[in-house]
Amino acid sequence: MAAPSGSTCGVRERSIRERVPPLLTDLYQFTMAYAYWRAGRHQEPAVFELFFRDNPFGGGFSIFAGLDDCLLFLQSFHFTDEDVDFLRSVLPPATDPAFFQFLRGLDCSGVTVRSVPEGTLVFARVPLMEVEGPLAVVQLLETSLLCLVNYASLVCSNAARFRLAAGPSRRLVEMGLRRAQGPDGGLTASRYTHVGGFDLTSNVQAGFLFGIPVAGTMAHSYVTSFTSLEEVYPRTLATVNGDPVDFISLTKVWLSHVSGLLEAEPGKIREDELAAFLSYAVSYPHNFLPVIDSYSVGCSGLLNFCAVALALCELGYQPVGVRLDSGDLCRQSVDVRRVFRLCRKHFSIPAFDSLIIMATNNISEQSMAELNKKENEIDVVGVGTHLVTCTKQPSLGCVYKLVEVRGRPRMKSSEDPEKSTVPGRKAVYRLVGADGHAFLDLVCLGAEASPQAGVPLSCFPLGCDGSVVTPAQVTCLFQEVFTKGQVTQRLCSTAETRAKVQTSLQTLHPRHKRLQEPDTYTVALSERLHHLVAEIQRGTSNHGSFLSAI
Amino acid sequence: MAAPSGSTCGVRERSIRERVPPLLTDLYQFTMAYAYWRAGRHQEPAVFELFFRDNPFGGGFSIFAGLDDCLLFLQSFHFTDEDVDFLRSVLPPATDPAFFQFLRGLDCSGVTVRSVPEGTLVFARVPLMEVEGPLAVVQLLETSLLCLVNYASLVCSNAARFRLAAGPSRRLVEMGLRRAQGPDGGLTASRYTHVGGFDLTSNVQAGFLFGIPVAGTMAHSYVTSFTSLEEVYPRTLATVNGDPVDFISLTKVWLSHVSGLLEAEPGKIREDELAAFLSYAVSYPHNFLPVIDSYSVGCSGLLNFCAVALALCELGYQPVGVRLDSGDLCRQSVDVRRVFRLCRKHFSIPAFDSLIIMATNNISEQSMAELNKKENEIDVVGVGTHLVTCTKQPSLGCVYKLVEVRGRPRMKSSEDPEKSTVPGRKAVYRLVGADGHAFLDLVCLGAEASPQAGVPLSCFPLGCDGSVVTPAQVTCLFQEVFTKGQVTQRLCSTAETRAKVQTSLQTLHPRHKRLQEPDTYTVALSERLHHLVAEIQRGTSNHGSFLSAI
Repeated sequence: MAAPSGSTCGVRERSIRERVPPLLTDLYQFTMAYAYWRAGRHQEPAVFELFFRDNPFGGGFSIFAGLDDCLLFLQSFHFTDEDVDFLRSVLPPATDPAFFQFLRGLDCSGVTVRSVPEGTLVFARVPLMEVEGPLAVVQLLETSLLCLVNYASLVCSNAARFRLAAGPSRRLVEMGLRRAQGPDGGLTASRYTHVGGFDLTSNVQAGFLFGIPVAGTMAHSYVTSFTSLEEVYPRTLATVNGDPVDFISLTKVWLSHVSGLLEAEPGKIREDELAAFLSYAVSYPHNFLPVIDSYSVGCSGLLNFCAVALALCELGYQPVGVRLDSGDLCRQSVDVRRVFRLCRKHFSIPAFDSLIIMATNNISEQSMAELNKKENEIDVVGVGTHLVTCTKQPSLGCVYKLVEVRGRPRMKSSEDPEKSTVPGRKAVYRLVGADGHAFLDLVCLGAEASPQAGVPLSCFPLGCDGSVVTPAQVTCLFQEVFTKGQVTQRLCSTAETRAKVQTSLQTLHPRHKRLQEPDTYTVALSERLHHLVAEIQRGTSNHGSFLSAI
Repeated sequence: MAAPSGSTCGVRERSIRERVPPLLTDLYQFTMAYAYWRAGRHQEPAVFELFFRDNPFGGGFSIFAGLDDCLLFLQSFHFTDEDVDFLRSVLPPATDPAFFQFLRGLDCSGVTVRSVPEGTLVFARVPLMEVEGPLAVVQLLETSLLCLVNYASLVCSNAARFRLAAGPSRRLVEMGLRRAQGPDGGLTASRYTHVGGFDLTSNVQAGFLFGIPVAGTMAHSYVTSFTSLEEVYPRTLATVNGDPVDFISLTKVWLSHVSGLLEAEPGKIREDELAAFLSYAVSYPHNFLPVIDSYSVGCSGLLNFCAVALALCELGYQPVGVRLDSGDLCRQSVDVRRVFRLCRKHFSIPAFDSLIIMATNNISEQSMAELNKKENEIDVVGVGTHLVTCTKQPSLGCVYKLVEVRGRPRMKSSEDPEKSTVPGRKAVYRLVGADGHAFLDLVCLGAEASPQAGVPLSCFPLGCDGSVVTPAQVTCLFQEVFTKGQVTQRLCSTAETRAKVQTSLQTLHPRHKRLQEPDTYTVALSERLHHLVAEIQRGTSNHGSFLSAI
């Protein structure tokens, strides 16, 4: 039950992702834009950068996502007459009418974006995007860009952590639509959890728009909707060779065998549940995977499953497995597997060797990690709430800060040191050691020469003293992705970005990927950038200005 | 800076809220629908109900929101050819082609919804919506309805708690767009936090679509974009009577007076910050509210503000106030107010009595509640992350459970008692005591007679023994809101629903509204419903069915 995964970003996908309206921003962007315009400063060249201050979830890394959505937004950015009329009604009556004409003609043709590629492993305080253009325009873009990057990166990073916790072979299904922040929150979640490492989604619209493989079989309501075997129809199922067989009678025979084998109490086996399983199996003989805990797994659900599955096997079909949705999932999975093995042996049915056990029910990162410690037989895990709402930390806290105006570096040096910014237009390099693992991200001024492989360089890790490092390889992280109004790179499909995430994660040493208390990855300023910060803090550069005499 | 608040749900608003596509659901809804269809059960009359199991945030209540969005979704529910083609590609190849024709013709013309009104105070385990219709159709609706109710109710309840924490007079501004789950998550947040009790939003699109008043002035980037007084333009400002005055020189004179009064060090006052304030003030002489902590509140921002504000006052304008965005907000607000009072007295400027102090910076429910305990002078609070992401509990956990098929009550009695459901089609009554406060929500079977005011009745509070209560008033909570495909009530505007929330909250005794450890509000089953549950659990009703002999 999987939709084909497209190889590039399709028309259907673009149409939904381009619809971020330019009014979807904070009002202060417009009040500031007007003040710039009124002072004649709106065309001044300015540079903003987007970054986050702390790696999410107490972890050692994040994944950068949402870039392509930003580029589509920038490409279609313009105000309609209706937008401008609304703004006129909101800004003070004395606002110069010519400002609204200016807005009506505005687009991103003067904007250039350099960025880390979508799906790249990134770290706190490293610039992710640099947005350059006329001051009023790049200011107006702030909230929309943050909105598009913040949650996409957060939920993608969360998915990558669940993937690390689950190990590489367990199949992971995202099923959080009903818990997300409304319809589009759910779509964004499905898209970026797939990018972060989930295999499948329950969200059909995400399959339709983004080509993500979709999965799902039945809910408890399906099981509880049945009352008796009278409701099963059709009552026959053809063998794979085409001969119709009385499927109910056949299953009853198997149920009696299974009950005997497991010494079950027939009085506790629910006929209504059996009816639900039978009815599902005749509709989907190749895809039989019921939820078996609507009543009691041990007394009813597992027996009914085995009976229907054995009947399917007799007719030549391969049943798929079971889903557990309550109670102690690990313990139950072991019990279920034991019964599968017993049936396989006792009835000589090899198909029972490949039955899968799916577990759902409020799975968190912690309970996922426990799967690798506790004995269990769970093959597939479905995750909803904790994945899409990022319970552990529901916001990434990306910010968008002004770093240069008219070629002059700008810096906010707050009383709260955490809120200070690093001035100037930058370049970012990832330094890789001889073991092939990245060991340091170097933030330089844009005008500096690139570090060279094999050549020692001085740098200043954030919050530490200076040190000298020698990279074995150097990768430039920033690429120009949007130039004067045009997207200058091919937009990747969801599947392509997903592959990039896993490749990028492989460059990181496991000690930084530990989910709990990872070793901190080093982010450092170049010597020149470090000196610029110090100069500005001392007030000796031409950056700050004080009223020495009033 | 506020848009007019519309009195009913407008065309613009409807158009955005109707666009929830029917594929935005979990795949298992379709696999189940096919199994029902194949068994000829798809037209069986069925009833689902929507409820949540625990009041959110450890509190004593919730607010029900999202109903109108559900009704608009139901009214426009249908599958396009493109939708059906996609489903064909996802379901197993053996799926009967006639099923897709069935889907193509499907709509909600057979669906009826009874519901608690939007904006009503509600409690855990009380049915909020009852959806009745053909089994396959009402099953398909599950995920979309949950998605529309879950977050809307959660964030609305969160806003109501922030409002309770803030007290009735402080103005609250929602500013969480950049931290929400993408564009639509942000819109949903702005809409339902306003409904829950916030006064204003920073989100312009939410003002445009829903008529919510919008607010905003300037960010730090505006302040840091200035380097010197050379950048201020125009350099004159007209008095309210129209005579242009050299505003820079006037402000410098005031700055010198203020510095003298406060014994400030002129060398620490930032000229770049003053330039930003001046430039903003000449653009918005009636709306001057700068952020004053870009550098140092005490050494620079507050002095610069006072100088510009005093100059504005001299020209006849009323400055609005200041925003604080870092550090100890309470302490700073006290310092700022003291300076305002000093200026007011020393310079005899009454306008300084009405300056407002706005505080922002990672405000949580707890820090909001502390405002009522610690000395402070904060008039307006802006809240982003903790409000929209509902950090304390980012999901409400609404569920949608089958309670009746073909007139027979259905129940899921899981091994996990928390996951059991209450069977049957229901009515819900709110019982009000002689003091005018609601004291009990009574869940009955739909066929039972309504409780009567002044007449004692037996009931069974959940998890407790039976008791007898006598209501002074009885309100029926369920209304029929959607009948055979048509919305049968007028959809309310955001402003109307907002008013209903506050009215509804007033009926609840303060002991249930306490944010920490509230007294539990009683939810009870009627005697008949209680007996039905017991019967089904004993397996003596005609509900369950067991395989007594196989």
